[in-house]
Amino acid sequence: MAMYALPRRLSISGGSAIGALRYITTTVLKPLPTSFREERDTFGPILVPSDKLWGAQTQRSLQNFDIGGDRERMPEPIIRAFGILKRCAAKVNMEYGLDPMVAKAIMQAAQEVAEGKLNDHFPLVVWQTGSGTQSNMNANEVIANRAAEILGHKRGEKVVHPNDHVNRSQSSNDTFPTVMHIAAAMEINSRLIPNLKHLHTSLNSKSVEFKDIVKIGRTHTQDATPLTLGQEFSGYSTQVKYGIDRVFCTLPRMYQLAQGGTAVGTGLNTKKGFDVKIAAAVAEETNLPFVTAENKFEALAAHDAFVETSGALNTIAASLMKIANDIRLLGSGPRCGLGELILPENEPGSSIMPGKVNPTQCEALTMVCAQVMGNHVAITVGGSNGHFELNVYKPLIASGLLHSVRLLGDASASFEKNCVRGIQANRERISKLLHESLMLVTSLNPKIGYDNAAAVAKKAHKEGSTLKEAALNLGVLTSEEFDTLVVPEKMIGPSD
Amino acid sequence: MAMYALPRRLSISGGSAIGALRYITTTVLKPLPTSFREERDTFGPILVPSDKLWGAQTQRSLQNFDIGGDRERMPEPIIRAFGILKRCAAKVNMEYGLDPMVAKAIMQAAQEVAEGKLNDHFPLVVWQTGSGTQSNMNANEVIANRAAEILGHKRGEKVVHPNDHVNRSQSSNDTFPTVMHIAAAMEINSRLIPNLKHLHTSLNSKSVEFKDIVKIGRTHTQDATPLTLGQEFSGYSTQVKYGIDRVFCTLPRMYQLAQGGTAVGTGLNTKKGFDVKIAAAVAEETNLPFVTAENKFEALAAHDAFVETSGALNTIAASLMKIANDIRLLGSGPRCGLGELILPENEPGSSIMPGKVNPTQCEALTMVCAQVMGNHVAITVGGSNGHFELNVYKPLIASGLLHSVRLLGDASASFEKNCVRGIQANRERISKLLHESLMLVTSLNPKIGYDNAAAVAKKAHKEGSTLKEAALNLGVLTSEEFDTLVVPEKMIGPSD
Amino acid sequence: MAMYALPRRLSISGGSAIGALRYITTTVLKPLPTSFREERDTFGPILVPSDKLWGAQTQRSLQNFDIGGDRERMPEPIIRAFGILKRCAAKVNMEYGLDPMVAKAIMQAAQEVAEGKLNDHFPLVVWQTGSGTQSNMNANEVIANRAAEILGHKRGEKVVHPNDHVNRSQSSNDTFPTVMHIAAAMEINSRLIPNLKHLHTSLNSKSVEFKDIVKIGRTHTQDATPLTLGQEFSGYSTQVKYGIDRVFCTLPRMYQLAQGGTAVGTGLNTKKGFDVKIAAAVAEETNLPFVTAENKFEALAAHDAFVETSGALNTIAASLMKIANDIRLLGSGPRCGLGELILPENEPGSSIMPGKVNPTQCEALTMVCAQVMGNHVAITVGGSNGHFELNVYKPLIASGLLHSVRLLGDASASFEKNCVRGIQANRERISKLLHESLMLVTSLNPKIGYDNAAAVAKKAHKEGSTLKEAALNLGVLTSEEFDTLVVPEKMIGPSD
Amino acid sequence: MAMYALPRRLSISGGSAIGALRYITTTVLKPLPTSFREERDTFGPILVPSDKLWGAQTQRSLQNFDIGGDRERMPEPIIRAFGILKRCAAKVNMEYGLDPMVAKAIMQAAQEVAEGKLNDHFPLVVWQTGSGTQSNMNANEVIANRAAEILGHKRGEKVVHPNDHVNRSQSSNDTFPTVMHIAAAMEINSRLIPNLKHLHTSLNSKSVEFKDIVKIGRTHTQDATPLTLGQEFSGYSTQVKYGIDRVFCTLPRMYQLAQGGTAVGTGLNTKKGFDVKIAAAVAEETNLPFVTAENKFEALAAHDAFVETSGALNTIAASLMKIANDIRLLGSGPRCGLGELILPENEPGSSIMPGKVNPTQCEALTMVCAQVMGNHVAITVGGSNGHFELNVYKPLIASGLLHSVRLLGDASASFEKNCVRGIQANRERISKLLHESLMLVTSLNPKIGYDNAAAVAKKAHKEGSTLKEAALNLGVLTSEEFDTLVVPEKMIGPSD
Repeated sequence: MAMYALPRRLSISGGSAIGALRYITTTVLKPLPTSFREERDTFGPILVPSDKLWGAQTQRSLQNFDIGGDRERMPEPIIRAFGILKRCAAKVNMEYGLDPMVAKAIMQAAQEVAEGKLNDHFPLVVWQTGSGTQSNMNANEVIANRAAEILGHKRGEKVVHPNDHVNRSQSSNDTFPTVMHIAAAMEINSRLIPNLKHLHTSLNSKSVEFKDIVKIGRTHTQDATPLTLGQEFSGYSTQVKYGIDRVFCTLPRMYQLAQGGTAVGTGLNTKKGFDVKIAAAVAEETNLPFVTAENKFEALAAHDAFVETSGALNTIAASLMKIANDIRLLGSGPRCGLGELILPENEPGSSIMPGKVNPTQCEALTMVCAQVMGNHVAITVGGSNGHFELNVYKPLIASGLLHSVRLLGDASASFEKNCVRGIQANRERISKLLHESLMLVTSLNPKIGYDNAAAVAKKAHKEGSTLKEAALNLGVLTSEEFDTLVVPEKMIGPSD
Repeated sequence: MAMYALPRRLSISGGSAIGALRYITTTVLKPLPTSFREERDTFGPILVPSDKLWGAQTQRSLQNFDIGGDRERMPEPIIRAFGILKRCAAKVNMEYGLDPMVAKAIMQAAQEVAEGKLNDHFPLVVWQTGSGTQSNMNANEVIANRAAEILGHKRGEKVVHPNDHVNRSQSSNDTFPTVMHIAAAMEINSRLIPNLKHLHTSLNSKSVEFKDIVKIGRTHTQDATPLTLGQEFSGYSTQVKYGIDRVFCTLPRMYQLAQGGTAVGTGLNTKKGFDVKIAAAVAEETNLPFVTAENKFEALAAHDAFVETSGALNTIAASLMKIANDIRLLGSGPRCGLGELILPENEPGSSIMPGKVNPTQCEALTMVCAQVMGNHVAITVGGSNGHFELNVYKPLIASGLLHSVRLLGDASASFEKNCVRGIQANRERISKLLHESLMLVTSLNPKIGYDNAAAVAKKAHKEGSTLKEAALNLGVLTSEEFDTLVVPEKMIGPSD
Repeated sequence: MAMYALPRRLSISGGSAIGALRYITTTVLKPLPTSFREERDTFGPILVPSDKLWGAQTQRSLQNFDIGGDRERMPEPIIRAFGILKRCAAKVNMEYGLDPMVAKAIMQAAQEVAEGKLNDHFPLVVWQTGSGTQSNMNANEVIANRAAEILGHKRGEKVVHPNDHVNRSQSSNDTFPTVMHIAAAMEINSRLIPNLKHLHTSLNSKSVEFKDIVKIGRTHTQDATPLTLGQEFSGYSTQVKYGIDRVFCTLPRMYQLAQGGTAVGTGLNTKKGFDVKIAAAVAEETNLPFVTAENKFEALAAHDAFVETSGALNTIAASLMKIANDIRLLGSGPRCGLGELILPENEPGSSIMPGKVNPTQCEALTMVCAQVMGNHVAITVGGSNGHFELNVYKPLIASGLLHSVRLLGDASASFEKNCVRGIQANRERISKLLHESLMLVTSLNPKIGYDNAAAVAKKAHKEGSTLKEAALNLGVLTSEEFDTLVVPEKMIGPSD
Repeated sequence: MAMYALPRRLSISGGSAIGALRYITTTVLKPLPTSFREERDTFGPILVPSDKLWGAQTQRSLQNFDIGGDRERMPEPIIRAFGILKRCAAKVNMEYGLDPMVAKAIMQAAQEVAEGKLNDHFPLVVWQTGSGTQSNMNANEVIANRAAEILGHKRGEKVVHPNDHVNRSQSSNDTFPTVMHIAAAMEINSRLIPNLKHLHTSLNSKSVEFKDIVKIGRTHTQDATPLTLGQEFSGYSTQVKYGIDRVFCTLPRMYQLAQGGTAVGTGLNTKKGFDVKIAAAVAEETNLPFVTAENKFEALAAHDAFVETSGALNTIAASLMKIANDIRLLGSGPRCGLGELILPENEPGSSIMPGKVNPTQCEALTMVCAQVMGNHVAITVGGSNGHFELNVYKPLIASGLLHSVRLLGDASASFEKNCVRGIQANRERISKLLHESLMLVTSLNPKIGYDNAAAVAKKAHKEGSTLKEAALNLGVLTSEEFDTLVVPEKMIGPSD
């Protein structure tokens, strides 16, 4: 009989010559479960901790895929989406003849999964079978055992059957892509989009707040013609706005559900209409416009929709990296940097140097952006490697996208709340830099000609003087003339 | 005076101890130009080959950026887009007061650039200043000299001035992003989309052609329940169809032109309305729905639109890699592979083994897909690294996207023409595999129960016999019953 | 006074119009701590849960960086490396005058951190300040409070001071890169290398076991000349062997420690020799050949060593993806694939089809490989984005590399144990394919000439017959001659 | 009979509704060849331009792979390496019985290929068969025809046979990986390493030149404790030095040649010892330490050596991006940036603003770095996708690596020559920033205590005054005391 194999590997290589042993034990001993029950699948019996709802197939996966530890568990939004899907499936299956008593118990149990109440019963990691079958069976087993309990039976008796009842008319090959889409669409709508919108609003407010502050522009990192600080922030705000548009553009394909395709996309073992009904049920349950996938073969064999949406997230990452980089450089200083922005102080920057504000929110955000770019490559590689009727990089692709969505959503919120909202313009510094700049000489061209203007600028540059000093010194115009001509405020838009 | 510095580096390291010298000279001597004229810019005079139209700034760039050699020249669609833009700019500038005689000469010269007639006068490589300023000046100089000739003047006299006339109301900082968008939109519309559409049509035809061929399905690369070959191809066809949708979804942002933003996005030195007029002129000239960018600060400082579109191309690359991989594996053999497809023979696969068809079109296509994925990372890195008012990875981003568009477009056409169009089903082989498969046992479940069905399959697997032999041997049903029940053709869709 | 802000955000957007509310609450309520103490830093007092050892700066980070949730916590090997480093620092500081009583208490507390006993006191996530300052302060605060307890004092009293004692002669800017290197080197040596070695040994054993099994070769996925299955596995084994070499080649730079560089690399506030002594102490403590970094400016401002090592991991990922892909394809079937390998059955592949073995270990491994490739891009982006004296993508870079090391190490072990070790050759199938292959015709060339040989092969291919049948039919040689000439066993190496 | 199909596609889609036709013709008409000869392969006869040396298989590839145009031709170092290899093969084959007259003609013809004299006869693009077979046949055909001419015969007569003579004992499957390794090793040794060494030397010289210039340090982009400008440059110099080490570490695997493995790695159709002799011949010819690959199966089926070396290049790209970013930011200004460095002016930055120096060399270099990162992903994807006995992404992998080597080598040279060499320190600006900085307050801690020092700094920050003014104002020390204590020059290293 199969032995109970928990805990996982306790130490890596007891006899290794390299490294002091006391440090290479990477897992602290956890208290072992002391009570077990027997569960069965077609491979035979296996022991499962008594306090857990999962069954034999979950237990086998736990033992066969000891990869990465607890933090690699299947992401919670996937677990919750399984709850939603299994609830909807039971409801639709009832229409197709499933015993209502069983169906209702499944629905109740699935609801608990959807609400996250049974998270502790989903121990499997991402790095399992590439179809996600084991997580589908984990959901089936947990819901079956919980439904049995609801009906007054014991765990493991299979009064409610994981396959015949909970997984009825389904296959891992269509349920897993379905929960991928449900989870991604929900996280995008409930976490990413709202937080990007807040960030957009906040950047936009700053753009309005700063609309009259004329400052030096910088191209090639070098001094250039002026613009307003509000204009500068309007660029950031537009980037975020378009980022939201970009994600929305990809959603029509994300809202397509594979459910009803079963094993290879044909829908074998389902009844006609099942696919449409279950998509409708999920749409109703989630308030999102899910529909059945137009082509189930594509929906199982490829995850282009995830590669595409990840591409939109990758674009947002590029945008946010640009914005955060600008903000930290504009806020650099306080004495030896650009110093045009004053960033909120959230924590001591240094125990010895008051006035040092580290742009830590920019740092967290740009790290997140780098990770999103990396996840995008992982998702692309996984997405390109499907074989025949099934792409078997599903858990990687799902967890990668959900990771990116979560990180971008959370980091945008943190950045907005702890940084953007509190940004102040250092008006004095901005004005000083603006008026010291040599490029204001451009305004003199019409009056004194390019050559004289160039001479003024060169003299000022060489001597470290102001343009005005240089101009007066060269005698090319009067102080009043200079003051009339050199007005940065007139250089920030096209002329009439 | 500046020295004429052609030819570029003739040998890498004459005195290197490593490598026989005769092999490390990487550039064959080209005939040197023998006649020069003097051109000037604010750095002074410089010699330029007499037979070339370019001027001083182009020449300086040629000498200062000896990186990568001729194959790294700025892509031709960028050069042509400069022709289109400069023609439109002259036309609009005429409305704002540019001397019509000069304007018309510029328009005629620019037209020649747009038609590719002056390609030899654009020698600069991608790896130059990150704003593309030098290529903008290359266009200005060539057009100015050519326009002067049209007006009966000599090159280098600046009768038509590169800056004051050709570049009027423009800055490199808005022209270069504008030509990026023009070139990308044109290449996408004239090369990529049509070729993807042909590929889609061809895959779709195969899907129809193969609609009655029932075959074994494969999940996890393992035998699974059947589907039709037409269904399998419908998945590929859907992937390509969605790929086209994906690119289209990104175009609204690609059709936004930066022109009118000038140096930092403010539009300094333009007149009100210039931006709208020039976008309209470009739209008319190209028959594409270009509009002026909603926010010019974003349009200069970021190239999110390119990162986004590259993300769509990356998705298409993932799709095509999946499709090409399937086709080569389904066509593997002729004796020791899957052998379900017969791919067209285009060239000798081997001089010794008749019947060997190498899936060379799949190979070219999947290599292209890998390159597109790589270019996407390059574009993302470039896109994320803007500073302040200007992203200075413009030539990289532009050439990367145009490279991906060209490769995907050409390779799709080649794959369609030289592979997909000629694919034949190996019906005999498909049928043989289908009927040998153990998974047809699934059909027996309702009649003899899961346990008996499993016993049949296990016996067949163990003994290497057919399912029917095993079933009859076990006495669980008659020959007639077996033949009635095991009908793959009934397993390819949901039941009524 | 600062408010205590745990728990983190309980729901994302309570009033969102999209999505049924009950599902978008993404965090199950955790029991809140009920007892707090006050801790202080230069920003003032803040409440900390009484049962936690951390202090004010950790608490602020917890509140300011609500990004990603618990699974994004700083990886455990970093925490343990902090324990090792702080223990060594106290020891060396004792030589430089730190009160031995304090030093010894610090050493004891740090030892507990190194052993993972205080993991629960390290709540911070990766997405914090890019210098890792907050995790360094977390370590300082926990060790200080624990050391105070050891000395009979209360938490929060700062009898042992986090900065003045625990962090003495250190800066986050040198401690964090130091723990990055310690953690990476230890994980590589204790987890990755041993597991790769086991995998190499196992593949090598299979190569020996299969050395006499002649099989068809495949190039371009098409039938080619034969080789032995042992030769095929020798290629895999060599790939893994070189993978180990590749990682070893990068370690000399990984063994360089930044410690002693303090804030910007100069070593301000340390004593001469401190850097060398602390590297020696760490080397002794870990049994790994750490040395002080040759150039501390490089060691703080860049993490090229991590980009480089990640490149080696990326190469290993490419190798393992190739190997796992081959094994799953060679094991495809059981009836309709290549079927040359029999892979171990670890779990039910399907509830209805016996004999179906899904190559789930290959799937987990290839998903891991894709993630490692993605992490590599994230690390590269982070590594390329340093500014001036400090790269501020440290936590991203560290966690990315440790993630890759952990996944590759664990997945290699799982793949070895649950797949490679149990692979069997399907000798019957291998032999059948080999002898059906048309490419054996090559052996006839010397005897009957290329043209006749080609005729034989073409006839066999066209008629679906064996080569022998075709040859006899064409009358080009006798049965005995054929049997003498066509001997695959003679085709597996160069001739004498 | 096969038709001659040049020129390639002349226009993309004549009847497209989108885009004005005159612009979408992407290839200018080239003069068509007017004279042809017939060449033959096993597919039959085909016309080839009379002035070209290539044969039938090259011509077929040209017609079947119309992808990307001329700039996508197989890189020249590959062509040259074919010359070297075929010369060596003829020499070794002579020892094994090849007719010396034929062998010597081949050697002479191959020498011309090695010297680049026949480049125009190698028209094939990278995007062909994934084994590079067509380029191998191109080399065989060109050399055979040229050798025939040398012997007084006509092209196309096959007096010297492409397969039997030029390709004797070889297969595309071992020659192409062999030329990949030869080309990469030669380019690395003759182009990349020397240019990186020059860059290292130049950065090192600057480090020495600037060793006494004390300047403000910056961490998190914010003001930090001081260091010398020489120390800052020593970090850059160390990065480049390690980059060279990194590439060298990968070369042992690059020096392994696949030659002798023939079709699948077994060496069928070679004689024992052939592999060792040919590696020795190549080593002698190139002065590089090539050896025969330890395992030929690995050498054909995987290109891990290229993935690994590309990883080293990727690390160098990360290093150079950091360095170039720092230099452009330190050189930002002239008035409104950091302004600590004065970069050489190589071309007009702007026609209106004197003193504006755009850091164009930094821009070209960082664009190159982004492309190298992208190529690395393409190479990784290609490297991970081998099937069975042959990786069929060879041309992609080879051209990607050679592209990266060329770009990094050339850009390093350009950056060194046109930027680093001419960098000057702006001593006045550096000194001004240093002495304005608040962080010098750190030096007061020992004398007046942390709290008083903090009060000084806070007062100075708030009032915008100097530290000294604030200190005197607060009365915490005298002017003399301040001047004695606050000495940045004493803050740039550990204390005794």
